[in-house]
Amino acid sequence: MFIDLRSDTVTKPTEGMRKAIYEAEVGDDCFGEDPSVSALERYCADYFQKEAALFTTGGTLSNQLAIKAMTRPGDEIFLDASYHINYYESASTSAFSGVNFSLTQHDDGLFDVADLERLHASKCRWSQNYATPRVVVVENTLGCKGGGIFPLEQMNQVFAYAERIGAYRYLDGARILHASIATGIDVTSYTDNADLLSMCLSKGLGAPVGSIMMGSRELIQQAKKYRKWFGGDQHQSGMMAAAGLYAMRNNIERLAEDHEHAALLHAQFADVDEARSGYKGTNMVTLDISRLGVTPMRFAELLKERGVGALPYNDKEIRLVPHINIDRAQIIKAAELIKAQVGELAHAKEAVK
Amino acid sequence: MFIDLRSDTVTKPTEGMRKAIYEAEVGDDCFGEDPSVSALERYCADYFQKEAALFTTGGTLSNQLAIKAMTRPGDEIFLDASYHINYYESASTSAFSGVNFSLTQHDDGLFDVADLERLHASKCRWSQNYATPRVVVVENTLGCKGGGIFPLEQMNQVFAYAERIGAYRYLDGARILHASIATGIDVTSYTDNADLLSMCLSKGLGAPVGSIMMGSRELIQQAKKYRKWFGGDQHQSGMMAAAGLYAMRNNIERLAEDHEHAALLHAQFADVDEARSGYKGTNMVTLDISRLGVTPMRFAELLKERGVGALPYNDKEIRLVPHINIDRAQIIKAAELIKAQVGELAHAKEAVK
Amino acid sequence: MFIDLRSDTVTKPTEGMRKAIYEAEVGDDCFGEDPSVSALERYCADYFQKEAALFTTGGTLSNQLAIKAMTRPGDEIFLDASYHINYYESASTSAFSGVNFSLTQHDDGLFDVADLERLHASKCRWSQNYATPRVVVVENTLGCKGGGIFPLEQMNQVFAYAERIGAYRYLDGARILHASIATGIDVTSYTDNADLLSMCLSKGLGAPVGSIMMGSRELIQQAKKYRKWFGGDQHQSGMMAAAGLYAMRNNIERLAEDHEHAALLHAQFADVDEARSGYKGTNMVTLDISRLGVTPMRFAELLKERGVGALPYNDKEIRLVPHINIDRAQIIKAAELIKAQVGELAHAKEAVK
Amino acid sequence: MFIDLRSDTVTKPTEGMRKAIYEAEVGDDCFGEDPSVSALERYCADYFQKEAALFTTGGTLSNQLAIKAMTRPGDEIFLDASYHINYYESASTSAFSGVNFSLTQHDDGLFDVADLERLHASKCRWSQNYATPRVVVVENTLGCKGGGIFPLEQMNQVFAYAERIGAYRYLDGARILHASIATGIDVTSYTDNADLLSMCLSKGLGAPVGSIMMGSRELIQQAKKYRKWFGGDQHQSGMMAAAGLYAMRNNIERLAEDHEHAALLHAQFADVDEARSGYKGTNMVTLDISRLGVTPMRFAELLKERGVGALPYNDKEIRLVPHINIDRAQIIKAAELIKAQVGELAHAKEAVK
Repeated sequence: MFIDLRSDTVTKPTEGMRKAIYEAEVGDDCFGEDPSVSALERYCADYFQKEAALFTTGGTLSNQLAIKAMTRPGDEIFLDASYHINYYESASTSAFSGVNFSLTQHDDGLFDVADLERLHASKCRWSQNYATPRVVVVENTLGCKGGGIFPLEQMNQVFAYAERIGAYRYLDGARILHASIATGIDVTSYTDNADLLSMCLSKGLGAPVGSIMMGSRELIQQAKKYRKWFGGDQHQSGMMAAAGLYAMRNNIERLAEDHEHAALLHAQFADVDEARSGYKGTNMVTLDISRLGVTPMRFAELLKERGVGALPYNDKEIRLVPHINIDRAQIIKAAELIKAQVGELAHAKEAVK
Repeated sequence: MFIDLRSDTVTKPTEGMRKAIYEAEVGDDCFGEDPSVSALERYCADYFQKEAALFTTGGTLSNQLAIKAMTRPGDEIFLDASYHINYYESASTSAFSGVNFSLTQHDDGLFDVADLERLHASKCRWSQNYATPRVVVVENTLGCKGGGIFPLEQMNQVFAYAERIGAYRYLDGARILHASIATGIDVTSYTDNADLLSMCLSKGLGAPVGSIMMGSRELIQQAKKYRKWFGGDQHQSGMMAAAGLYAMRNNIERLAEDHEHAALLHAQFADVDEARSGYKGTNMVTLDISRLGVTPMRFAELLKERGVGALPYNDKEIRLVPHINIDRAQIIKAAELIKAQVGELAHAKEAVK
Repeated sequence: MFIDLRSDTVTKPTEGMRKAIYEAEVGDDCFGEDPSVSALERYCADYFQKEAALFTTGGTLSNQLAIKAMTRPGDEIFLDASYHINYYESASTSAFSGVNFSLTQHDDGLFDVADLERLHASKCRWSQNYATPRVVVVENTLGCKGGGIFPLEQMNQVFAYAERIGAYRYLDGARILHASIATGIDVTSYTDNADLLSMCLSKGLGAPVGSIMMGSRELIQQAKKYRKWFGGDQHQSGMMAAAGLYAMRNNIERLAEDHEHAALLHAQFADVDEARSGYKGTNMVTLDISRLGVTPMRFAELLKERGVGALPYNDKEIRLVPHINIDRAQIIKAAELIKAQVGELAHAKEAVK
Repeated sequence: MFIDLRSDTVTKPTEGMRKAIYEAEVGDDCFGEDPSVSALERYCADYFQKEAALFTTGGTLSNQLAIKAMTRPGDEIFLDASYHINYYESASTSAFSGVNFSLTQHDDGLFDVADLERLHASKCRWSQNYATPRVVVVENTLGCKGGGIFPLEQMNQVFAYAERIGAYRYLDGARILHASIATGIDVTSYTDNADLLSMCLSKGLGAPVGSIMMGSRELIQQAKKYRKWFGGDQHQSGMMAAAGLYAMRNNIERLAEDHEHAALLHAQFADVDEARSGYKGTNMVTLDISRLGVTPMRFAELLKERGVGALPYNDKEIRLVPHINIDRAQIIKAAELIKAQVGELAHAKEAVK
C-alpha cells in the first residue's frame, strides 16, 4: 500500500466523516439557508471567540478574501517571502487586489518588529500619495518552512506594531491548531490579537475541502461580499460544511498523534548523515538530500517507485507529512523504504569515487 | 410542507445522489489526482464533444474564469443587460478582469446581428488604442427572462458575427440542457459553435454544488490556471464531482418533467386576470401581480406564510420554478394557495374602491 | 492655406499666449512650488466658485482622475454611450478603475431621470454585494453629439437624482464654457451642483495643452494623489499653466465668435440637399454626406486635397469646428470648397444613373 | 539668493531654452502632427540607436508605460527596493498593472545574477499557474542611492540572465547620461541590451518637463497605446518637446560640470567629521548628519533659513544636487553655509555634555 506523506492535503475522509456528509441537512447557502453551514460557522466563531465566521472552499480563497476585505488597490502588505500568500498567491493577489508586498526573507520565515521597521523604511512614506501599509500577515505554522511555529510572544509584538502603524493584523492560520497542540498554548491566545484569521479544514483536520475565516462582524461581512465576487458562494455547501464540523468536533486533539509520528520519523534519521532530517515540532519532517547527487524531484520519483509519497520542497529538501490516514506502522515502514533509497544512492555515489 | 418554487437552486440531493457522494472515490485534485473529478470532466467533455472540461464550484466562478481566460484588462464584451454576468456579476467582472460591457437592453434578452453592429458603432474603433471587442456572450436559457430559449438559428448568427470580428464565443449555458430538452434539438447543436461554455450541475440537475466548463484544451487550461487564482481549486472535490456525475447520468431526461410542471402551473392561471402568468417553454413561470397593489417582495412574503416559496423577480413579477423535489400534486396545491392569495388581495382592492 | 476645421484641439498658440509662456515664472510643481500653476489653480477655483482646483495634462487625464477619485473597483457609473469617457476611454476606465458603466443610448446624448431609473433597474440591487452606482456623469457640451447643450434644468434633475441614490455628480465640462456663452447662463449655474468638474484649456480656449479640475478640497486632494499615480505630475509645468491662465483671462468671451462662425458655416448649407447640415448652437457643424455615395473618411480625404480639414464623425457625417485660428473669410472659403466637392460628387452620382 | 540643491528637478529653463519653446512649431500630437514632438522622438531614437521613441510627460509615466507594455496582471518584475519604481511607484504599479515585485535590498542598490537567482527561488515556479518573471529592471544612475552607477559589466550580466529566463530588460535611465558622462563609456553601451529604456529631460538636462522612451517599434507602440490610457496624450505638446530637443542638443556635455561641482562640494567636507560626505561619482552628494542630534528634516529646515536647499534623504542623510542653474561660486558658498550650520549644531551638542 502506498504511504502518501507528501502533504496533509491528501487525506481521504474517514468513515465517520463520510457518514456525517451523507446525513447532512442542507439548504441554499446563497439564500443563507444552509443549516450545516450555519452550524459550522457558529461553532468556529465560538471556538475562536470571534464575532463571526465564514466558510470558504479553501485556504487560498480565504487568503484572497482577507486581503481584498482589508485593502484597496495600491495598498501594501507586510509578510515573509515564504508565506503561502507570496509563494503561491502573489500573482492572484496582485492581479485581483492590486496590492504590493513588502517582504522579509528569513530562513525560518519569522520576522520581528525591527524587520518590519526596515520594510517601512524601504518605501517613500512622507505623504499619503504613496503605498500605505495596510496589513501585517503572520503565517502560523509555517507551511513552507517545515511547519515551524511563529512564537506567541513574537506574534504579539509584530501585531502590536501593526496596530501602531494603523495596519490590520491577519493570521494565515491554515495550521494554527497545530501550533496550539504542539505548544499546549490555548489556540485563542494565538488568535485573539488577529483582526481576521483563517484556518484549513482540509489539511490536518481531514475534511475533503474547506477553510474557515473568523473575525469581526464587519470584516466577515466584507469577506462574504467578496466571496460572491470570487465565485466562492455555493448552493448546498452544507454537505462539505458538515465534514468540517465533524472535523472540528473529532479531529483536533488527534493532531498530537501526527506530531508524534513526525517526531518518530525524524528520529529514524538521527544518524543518517546523507539525508539530514529537520523537524520543527509539528507535523512536518524535511530531509536534506543534497549530498546524494540527485534533485529532490528525482528523489521523490524514486521514493514513489518504492511506495512512499514525498514532496520536492526546495532545491535541497523533500518534505514528509504524517496525517490522519497514516499510522505508526506506516511511519516505521516509510522510514525503512526511504533509508533503503538513501543507502542505494550513497553507495552508488561512493562507487563513482 | 413548504413548497419551495423560488429557484431550481434550492434542490436537496436525492437519496441516490447522497449515496453516490458517500461512496465517492477521492484524491487530491490540486495534484490532479481525484478520480471522481476526472471522471466527471471526461464524461462532460465527451457528452458535449469538446476537447476538455473543468469542474468548478459554481456558475459564477465559471463565468468569471471564462471572461478572465478570454480577455485582458480594457477588452470589451457584448451581452444583454439581463444576463447573469451583468445583472449579478458586473462588479466582480469589472474589478477582477477589468473589462467593459457593451449591453443590449432587450425585453426578452435576445439580440441579433444588427444589435451587435449597433454596439460596435457605440465606441471608437478606428485604432487598436481603444476597447477591443473580445467576447460575445449568449445566455441560454435566459435566467432573468423567464427561462426563455435563445433560438438556435439566432445563436448561430450572432456567433458567426463574433467570429467575423475576431471575438470569442461564450455560452453561459447554466441551463442549456433545458433548451435542448424543451426543443428536442441535440444539445451539441447549441454548443458546437461556442469556444467555451459552462453548465450548472446545481440547478435543474439537482447536485448540491458545482458547474462544469467545456472547450478547447487551451482555453480550459487558461480557465484552470485562473481557477487557482480565484481560490477555486479544492483538495478532495471528488465527493461533489460524484454528485455532478450522478446528475449527468440520471437527471437530464427528467428535466422534461419540470417543464411539464411549469406548463401545468402556468395553465392554472390562464383565466386569472389579476395575476397574469408568463411561460417561455422551459422550467420557469412568472406572475405579473402589479395590479394587486402590492410589491413582488410583499407578495412573496404573503405566499411564504401560506407555504409557497416564490421569488420577487423585478418590480412587477414573481417567479416560480418547479424542480426535482417538486411533484405534480405540489404544483396543483401551490397554484391553489397562490390563487387564494391573489383573490384575497383583489377583493381587498375592490373593497377600497 | 489649409483651413483646419477638424477639431478645436488643433489650435496653435497665438502670439500673446506664446509670450505668456516665454515669460512664465516657474518652480517645481512636484514640490508644490510652481507659481504659475498655483495662479492658474487659484484663478479657476475662484472663477467656478469651488474650494480647490487641479491642473492636469489633458481632458482624458481629468476624466480618469475623477473616476478614480470617486470610485472603488466594482462600482458603477451612469452616463451616455456617446460620452468621451465611454466612447474613447472605456478601455482605460475599466482597466485602471475597475468600474462598470450603465449606459443610455440616446441619439442626442441627453438622458433624464426616467432613463437613470431604468439603468438602476438593469442590475441586481437588493444587496450591497453587487455593483453600487457611484457616479452620474453629465457631459456638457456633447462632443460626440454635435456640440449639443445639456439643458440646465435637466442637468439639475439628473444631479438631484444622483444625490438621492448617494452617487457623486461629475461634470465632464471640457466645453462647459461654450454652453454658458451660447445660452448666456452664468457658467457657475452649470457647475454649482457638480461635486467635481473638469474643463479643457486646450480646446476652444486655445492653450497648447491642459485641463483643469474643480471641486471640494477633499476630492481634489484625491485627484491629486491619483495624478501622481497616473504619471501626470510634472516639474516646471508652469509654462503650460501660464498658457492656460492667459486663455482664461483672454479667450473666454471670444468663444462667441466661434459660435457665430459655426452658425455662418451652417447657413451656407441651408439649401444643399446632398449634404444636410446640423447645428446645435455652439461651435460644431455636422454634414450628413451619406447621400453622396462616399464614406465620411473618403469625403474628408477629398476635402483635405482641396485645403479643408474635416473629421469623419460617424458612418454618415463629417464634423467641422471653427476655432481661435479661423476667421470669417476662412469660413466662407471653406464652405465654397466643401460645396464644390459636394457638387462634384453629386454630379458624378447623377451621371451614373 | 537661495541656492537650491534639493534635486536636479528644480531647474528653471535657461534663456536659450525659453526661446526654443517660444518659437516651437506645433501641431496636434493626438493626430500625430506635432513637428517638434516628431523631431525630438526621431532625434532620441537615433541618438540611442533604437527603432522608435516616445515623448512622455515625465519619468513616472515612462516607468508606468514600460511596465504596462511589458506585462499582464499577475506577472512579476525583479528590481531593487531602492528603485523609483518601488520606492515611489509601488502603489500605482500594483494598482494599474497588477504586477508583483521581487525585490533585492542592497545598500548600494546594485544586484547580481546570484541575487536574481535567489529571487527566482523565492516563489513557486513549477507551473505556469503562478507568478511569471516578466521584467528585470536596472536603474542607472541610482537616484535613491546617491547617484551611484550600475557598472556596465554587471548590467550586461543581469540583462543576459533576464534573457535566459525569458524576461524583458528595462532600463530606468532617468539619469543614464550621467553614467555615460561620468565613466566616459558611450551611452549606447549602456542602452544596447535594454529592450526598453526611459530617460528624463527634466532632470540634469534642464527641460521644464518630459521624459523620453526608446525601444523596438513594437514596444513603443504598446507604450503609446497605454500613454493614451494613462491620459498622457497631449495636443500641442511640441512646445515642451522643443525644450527637450534643445536640452539634447545643448545640455548633455555640460553634465560634466555638475559632476565637478558635486566633487567640489564633497571635497569641502573631507575633514568634517560631524557631517560625513558621500559621493558616488555623478551629480549627487550625501551628508550623514546623524551625529548632530537632529533629523534630516530639521537639518534641511535650518539650511533653508540660511539660504540652501537640501533634501531629507533617509533617516540619517540629506542630499545635495548641483545642476544647470548652479555655478562654482554657489557651490563654495553653499558649503560654507552648511558647514556653519554643522558647526553650530556640533557646538550646541558639545555644550550639553
